[in-house]
Amino acid sequence: MNRWLLPENIADVLPSEARKIEELRRILLDRFQSYGYELVMPPMLEYLDSLLTGSGQDLNLKTFKLVDQLSGRTLGLRADITPQVARIDAHLLNRQGVTRLCYAGSVLHTLAAPGTSSREQLQLGAEIYGHAGWEADLEVQTLLNEVLTLSNLGEITLDMAHAGILTGILGEYHPKSDALEALYAALQAKDLPGLTQLLSDWPAAIKSAIISLAALSGSPKEVLPAARKALPQTKQVAGALDDLERLCQAISGLPNAPKLNLDLSDLRGYQYHSGVMFAAYVEGLPAAIARGGRYDMVGEAFGRSRPATGFSLDIMTLARLSKIDSRKNAILAPWSNDEQLSQAIAALRAKGEVVIQLLPGHEQDGEEFHCDRELVDQKGAWVVITRA
Amino acid sequence: MNRWLLPENIADVLPSEARKIEELRRILLDRFQSYGYELVMPPMLEYLDSLLTGSGQDLNLKTFKLVDQLSGRTLGLRADITPQVARIDAHLLNRQGVTRLCYAGSVLHTLAAPGTSSREQLQLGAEIYGHAGWEADLEVQTLLNEVLTLSNLGEITLDMAHAGILTGILGEYHPKSDALEALYAALQAKDLPGLTQLLSDWPAAIKSAIISLAALSGSPKEVLPAARKALPQTKQVAGALDDLERLCQAISGLPNAPKLNLDLSDLRGYQYHSGVMFAAYVEGLPAAIARGGRYDMVGEAFGRSRPATGFSLDIMTLARLSKIDSRKNAILAPWSNDEQLSQAIAALRAKGEVVIQLLPGHEQDGEEFHCDRELVDQKGAWVVITRA
Repeated sequence: MNRWLLPENIADVLPSEARKIEELRRILLDRFQSYGYELVMPPMLEYLDSLLTGSGQDLNLKTFKLVDQLSGRTLGLRADITPQVARIDAHLLNRQGVTRLCYAGSVLHTLAAPGTSSREQLQLGAEIYGHAGWEADLEVQTLLNEVLTLSNLGEITLDMAHAGILTGILGEYHPKSDALEALYAALQAKDLPGLTQLLSDWPAAIKSAIISLAALSGSPKEVLPAARKALPQTKQVAGALDDLERLCQAISGLPNAPKLNLDLSDLRGYQYHSGVMFAAYVEGLPAAIARGGRYDMVGEAFGRSRPATGFSLDIMTLARLSKIDSRKNAILAPWSNDEQLSQAIAALRAKGEVVIQLLPGHEQDGEEFHCDRELVDQKGAWVVITRA
Repeated sequence: MNRWLLPENIADVLPSEARKIEELRRILLDRFQSYGYELVMPPMLEYLDSLLTGSGQDLNLKTFKLVDQLSGRTLGLRADITPQVARIDAHLLNRQGVTRLCYAGSVLHTLAAPGTSSREQLQLGAEIYGHAGWEADLEVQTLLNEVLTLSNLGEITLDMAHAGILTGILGEYHPKSDALEALYAALQAKDLPGLTQLLSDWPAAIKSAIISLAALSGSPKEVLPAARKALPQTKQVAGALDDLERLCQAISGLPNAPKLNLDLSDLRGYQYHSGVMFAAYVEGLPAAIARGGRYDMVGEAFGRSRPATGFSLDIMTLARLSKIDSRKNAILAPWSNDEQLSQAIAALRAKGEVVIQLLPGHEQDGEEFHCDRELVDQKGAWVVITRA
């Protein structure tokens, strides 16, 4: 076996791509900071139990396991940073007021997610804890729209759904979790015959409401009035539709507003989401570029259930799609132990220039930097000139 | 077991520390870039064989192992990024000329290193490939001194040694590797009786040269002339002393020059180093804050042996010792759906200000940001005023 072979779906990131990732990482973290989000850095490894808290079997299968030789217990290599940040809010910071947190770090998956080709991601996200109202959802969606706009990806589509609608329709009726799984799959596939069969012995009012969900997808202007007609207007359903309406209205008034799409049949993540759920799409990527939503029970396992909403994305995927230009120009300089040369180089670097010194006996070749200028000795003074 | 407990020697990094780490990370990577170092991002996981290439048993014991369910082979969670970057230079980039690479990423250790309390580090480093001369060593040492100075750590001491001195003394005499290990330990401990016993049946000239090594430690001005007297001036020994002298002279002329110290008996890492080795020390940390040196054979296992020199450090440790101030002030703003307020906030954020909107029903409390100003409505215009 050649020692330079990498495992399947694991790759090196080479200079041109790495610079772009680094630049986007900074743009996004700076924008998070400008909204008052505080950076946290949870560890790469934790006890498996803590990492999987509040999540499903899905995350368990995604998580690499290893043995801690200090405790003998099983550790997990994180596959998702969100539960770690919830732990920090619930247990470590333990503040009473609103807390805004953000993070950027590597996550690993045992297998590449469907539609992706990498088992490693650079996950970056923002979360707001402690406010149950729609204003927090608006803030994170606004922030997401801003960072996607800054990333220069072309037109953005924001899909919204609401976990409260299905809960509101079901009311006191509690189907088994595998029936809910099947329902989710049938709605996702808009499989009406399958749906009808699945719901055959469910209460008639619930059955007809769920079947009408399948058609409630499209622009907010069409979907919201149709949903008010077709769905039972229980307090929860009506509240969910009001939240969606307020959000759609506010988001469509933003600078660089995304294209909005409501899909009330989209129940992905309904197991842990508790309110508005959203996903952003861009041209050239069939999967969502970012996902988020409200999951108010996330801190429960850590002893403190707080309202929570936020989003996350993978910077590596973002960088692949981003049209920002992160290439730097550079100045070539000769090597000598002339003190004036050293001073000239230091002054240029301090001004933010890249100055590459040619080590004795080497010509520059195949560099990532575009060396468009050089530092030359003209009558005893070091000056920068354009390269021929 | 409480779900918020973390494994021993594994910790969360909370906002004030995380901001400092992020700021230092940027300062260092920007400085690396200004010298023409290209950023690469090797993966967190690789086949164990590749990660351990060219390194000793030491790195093997430090590396967490896990199973790749795709290949069934053993993967390692990287404990050191240096061999990965050597692989990228040797195999992936495969350039003929000088290549400068840098990196920043998490590494994990099965046990905390002696004198440290963490099994996770944020390793950051710079490497230069393709130049065998001392000018490359000077460049990386200069760069290290600059980034340590920028990190505001107080006085820096740079220790230098040279792997070529022992090789030069031994010449054609090849002791067994465990005898070399014992020699290293005895020299490290300046254990003269132990050393004499260990060397009892070695050739007399080698024995006396090695014993004199133990005393060759201190300022370059004292050590270099003493070494020229006490050691056999073979081509390799004389070359090593010339390199050290040139380096010491150039480094001591730098702006913010570090205190220099030569310790010719320091053979740490002599197994893989091939030339100048160095370590930087700062007040408040008994271990080195950064280590580096020349290891010209590092690419060999990947099919291409190139001259190589560089250094690495842990940003988390650096941040703990750094006196830079990364705290940001912030402006508080009320929440309303007034469009002029939104515009005023967006304009402040675009200028680099942190603006925190108070969500309805919440007062601000216990934030990491120092909210010294607020945005208020004065006669229909939104203005920033100092907070009482």
